[in-house]
Amino acid sequence: MAETEKTSIVVFSGDMDKVFAAFIIATGCAAAGMYTTLFFTFWGLNAIKTGAPIKAKGFLGKMMGIMNRGGINRLNPSRFSFGGIGRILFSKMMSDKNVAPLEELRQTCIDLDVHMLACKMSMDMMEITRDDLIPEIEDIAGVATFIKEAANSKIQLFI
Amino acid sequence: MAETEKTSIVVFSGDMDKVFAAFIIATGCAAAGMYTTLFFTFWGLNAIKTGAPIKAKGFLGKMMGIMNRGGINRLNPSRFSFGGIGRILFSKMMSDKNVAPLEELRQTCIDLDVHMLACKMSMDMMEITRDDLIPEIEDIAGVATFIKEAANSKIQLFI
Amino acid sequence: MAETEKTSIVVFSGDMDKVFAAFIIATGCAAAGMYTTLFFTFWGLNAIKTGAPIKAKGFLGKMMGIMNRGGINRLNPSRFSFGGIGRILFSKMMSDKNVAPLEELRQTCIDLDVHMLACKMSMDMMEITRDDLIPEIEDIAGVATFIKEAANSKIQLFI
Repeated sequence: MAETEKTSIVVFSGDMDKVFAAFIIATGCAAAGMYTTLFFTFWGLNAIKTGAPIKAKGFLGKMMGIMNRGGINRLNPSRFSFGGIGRILFSKMMSDKNVAPLEELRQTCIDLDVHMLACKMSMDMMEITRDDLIPEIEDIAGVATFIKEAANSKIQLFI
Repeated sequence: MAETEKTSIVVFSGDMDKVFAAFIIATGCAAAGMYTTLFFTFWGLNAIKTGAPIKAKGFLGKMMGIMNRGGINRLNPSRFSFGGIGRILFSKMMSDKNVAPLEELRQTCIDLDVHMLACKMSMDMMEITRDDLIPEIEDIAGVATFIKEAANSKIQLFI
Repeated sequence: MAETEKTSIVVFSGDMDKVFAAFIIATGCAAAGMYTTLFFTFWGLNAIKTGAPIKAKGFLGKMMGIMNRGGINRLNPSRFSFGGIGRILFSKMMSDKNVAPLEELRQTCIDLDVHMLACKMSMDMMEITRDDLIPEIEDIAGVATFIKEAANSKIQLFI
């Protein structure tokens, strides 16, 4: 594969299993030499939060800050969430099978130079600031940035 | 970007937040000069209904007509729906941040010449007729139409 | 369309309606002469299980084996599942409208030479073996195989 080939993935979901899929595909693309971009928006922003409490002013911003407290290690799977038990079971199942936990997979993305962008509009709506996100986020960007990348990509996915 | 570049998006979801994402990406693509097509199928059809009561004959058609009454302004978010409260909170949050409501975003799509197609097979299954949909829908189409568009598109997404 | 054009679809979801959408798009692409690949991962694996009881050793493997018993005919829709009633209603609605049931659609995919791959990592995690899957599955593959296919495809979707 030529080094200039690109992959652009919208990470809209904040479900543990879907974020997992996004990171696996992203590391796979990066390992294959592709220029890979993850564009985190809406619930997907939970995968790149530091996990520290969020100081939102609005009611829903506060509520989501509380319900999404803890960052990437507190994401629930899209099925079998059982009030948090599903997450623990999944984590155990992953470690039993020597599958890297989400935080480690995210670090692998970073190590492989996967480009991580956060969606400006979603951050504004949810009252999430730059300081609430991990420092490795390359940029806060609008949808136009994503579209420009995606239109020049071999692979585009919405997860 | 050349004006002949295309984007094709399947809008399968009827979740408020995902329809929102679809409209934002579509307006972004159209604003960038791309020929943009939204193919509404399954639950996504709720985003292009007029909101008037649907006269389905079958039991499930009736049930879905009732549960999906009200058109685009009654879509619930994929999280925090809370029996309709989530929708109201989201709408408030969006207006607080000067984000256009869904109906206005749909109008922007129309104004920017985003091509809106409705899936024939889903309409048949759910007993939705042309009259149940907003007049701006360009065509009722089969999956073959979507595939032909998608295969010639720079960007294809399934939302 | 040239015969060498390709479509690659990740079937991540195990929801009846989304698997349905994946099969419809796949048959459409295959019918249009495209080389079409379905890459089943996570919950999507339920769509290609034989339906026989799964002999997982781990707790979550066992639990998922039980909850996902029955194979493709036991998938629930993403909405209106109602503890299994939604599935029955959907099936009835589909047969009323002469829409093929999922199992028949899957067979059509096979007849049209849609290439079906199962994700190795998901199978390991969920303790699913080759014998748990229908014999028509062409291969057990890693994410690298999918990425290679997808990068050479006109259409890529994540469902």
